[in-house]
Amino acid sequence: MTDQKFYPEESPRFAQAVEQLKGKKVAVLGHQRPDGDCIGSIVAVVRVLKSLGIEAVGLNRDSVPASLENFVGDTPLMLADDFQPDGHVAVTVDSADFKRVGDRLNELFPEVALNIDHHISNKEYGAENIVIADACATAEILAGFFLDLGYEIDAVTAQGLYVGIATDTGQFRFPSTTPETFEIARRLCEQGANPSEAAYQLYERESFAKIQLLQHFLDSLHMEFDNRVCIGLLENGIYDQTGATIDDAEGLVDYARAIDGVDVGVLIEDRDGAIKVSLRAKDPFYRVDQVAKQFSGGGHACAAGLNVENSSIAEFQPKLIEALGEHLKTLGTEK
Amino acid sequence: MTDQKFYPEESPRFAQAVEQLKGKKVAVLGHQRPDGDCIGSIVAVVRVLKSLGIEAVGLNRDSVPASLENFVGDTPLMLADDFQPDGHVAVTVDSADFKRVGDRLNELFPEVALNIDHHISNKEYGAENIVIADACATAEILAGFFLDLGYEIDAVTAQGLYVGIATDTGQFRFPSTTPETFEIARRLCEQGANPSEAAYQLYERESFAKIQLLQHFLDSLHMEFDNRVCIGLLENGIYDQTGATIDDAEGLVDYARAIDGVDVGVLIEDRDGAIKVSLRAKDPFYRVDQVAKQFSGGGHACAAGLNVENSSIAEFQPKLIEALGEHLKTLGTEK
Repeated sequence: MTDQKFYPEESPRFAQAVEQLKGKKVAVLGHQRPDGDCIGSIVAVVRVLKSLGIEAVGLNRDSVPASLENFVGDTPLMLADDFQPDGHVAVTVDSADFKRVGDRLNELFPEVALNIDHHISNKEYGAENIVIADACATAEILAGFFLDLGYEIDAVTAQGLYVGIATDTGQFRFPSTTPETFEIARRLCEQGANPSEAAYQLYERESFAKIQLLQHFLDSLHMEFDNRVCIGLLENGIYDQTGATIDDAEGLVDYARAIDGVDVGVLIEDRDGAIKVSLRAKDPFYRVDQVAKQFSGGGHACAAGLNVENSSIAEFQPKLIEALGEHLKTLGTEK
Repeated sequence: MTDQKFYPEESPRFAQAVEQLKGKKVAVLGHQRPDGDCIGSIVAVVRVLKSLGIEAVGLNRDSVPASLENFVGDTPLMLADDFQPDGHVAVTVDSADFKRVGDRLNELFPEVALNIDHHISNKEYGAENIVIADACATAEILAGFFLDLGYEIDAVTAQGLYVGIATDTGQFRFPSTTPETFEIARRLCEQGANPSEAAYQLYERESFAKIQLLQHFLDSLHMEFDNRVCIGLLENGIYDQTGATIDDAEGLVDYARAIDGVDVGVLIEDRDGAIKVSLRAKDPFYRVDQVAKQFSGGGHACAAGLNVENSSIAEFQPKLIEALGEHLKTLGTEK
């Protein structure tokens, strides 16, 4: 296994792209509301470029969530608003659409030299695009490249890449988890990644406010369509009431989906009259993206979302339930 | 890596023990209230023995929890109460103390031929004892043996062993997760283990009653000692009220421990006047076993428990809080 390359076709392309970056200043851009794979991938690319003598800085529109701060270490990472470009060349990670890096970075960088991603929907907006859709995470792709090419993986890089893989696979639970995922996890641990320290930072530093938000959400859960759909609510004012942040709502909808017999879990949130809906299916068969699309939303077969302005839960929930009912009827019950 | 043995010293001992079992009927015993590592290990040993031409059956005092039923497949597995011994020889898995297999199996099998476990506290009650305390799970030990020895690992065996490892490491989050853990996970996937199918069975089939139990528990959370201790309650009658089972309480205390700044999470449960307490620490420094011991309980540095008869939450909680306060004072705040 150790002699085999993870990405025999793509690794040389990555090496060539890195070669092109030599002598340039590089800005590594991630998407808005960065997650573990985004931060881990930025950290890893910046550090590896620096180890190869290339000046590099990571940039994000939004700040690093508290649970991920510890994984940045001494990596140069800035908010887009604080950054003054000085002839920098852009590299994006984990960003399917260049719009996802946010307005200011879109303006600062009209061109992208290199786009590395694992989303099948990637729009290939770069001069060079390396998109591997069956990888579980952008971090898995990068780890594979670095290992294939013998690039230096220090402990911070290894931990960042590990965190990207662990979070994007839901701790090795999603179907994207393959034997290669475990092989890469092993190799990263050998380079200094620490699974239990990562888990502590990611999962053992919850705010009490987040627990209260979860409690309110669970209290609101109700079933529709013979328990095939489970809906939970976050009423307007809940963030003020609990002290929770918007990031704390991440993952709540999974509690609705995880119930036995439920095919689709739903979160309906009212933020000052702006309705935000998350739809999560257990199986791609349920194509929740098609329901989201009816309300100008979008997403994937198992995970989709939509936004409605100037409404309320009382007004919008019946419309959504009707659409879900029609959708389930069209699908039938046979998978 | 593939040429290296996982357990160069112990695998030959296991092979020898298996050799001794040839021509005999074997009963593979697990502990009461079986968990993923217990069921996975029983399934794996029974199947491997059968593949080697040895008659074998798995035995448990308690029935297989619903979330684990799917991993048994066509493995012969019986309740202790339904079993009639016929010269069977006992092998135990994942059972630190022979008492843990339960009264009836203790009576049926006064002797244990082979005892395989990963608990450091194992009492070595077998004629042959293979205890590897730094393994993350008994399933990890067994997988290592089978791979080292070239025993047949069919898909059900691979999945059982994978489930043992995934559950006993909290999905690769506990400090016992090592590079070898990932290597073994990879090899099991190559033999037919399916991480996402395992996760679906383990985590996506929650009962609505369990969610209600969680909601009640979260609602009861309160802090002590400058938020260093977080206590949650399950009042008497809560199982009837929600329809949840005792197994559904598993893992609730982790929500209390996971809060930022909390050193020790506590669950206090009243079951008809019998008080049951679970203590979970973030760090072994907190030695919650010492607190449990004061009330004739026990356990590990990070995970301990105790039982008190004929009491109530109102009566016992103040005593426990006082003991925790004294304990924290003795420890100081410096880890």
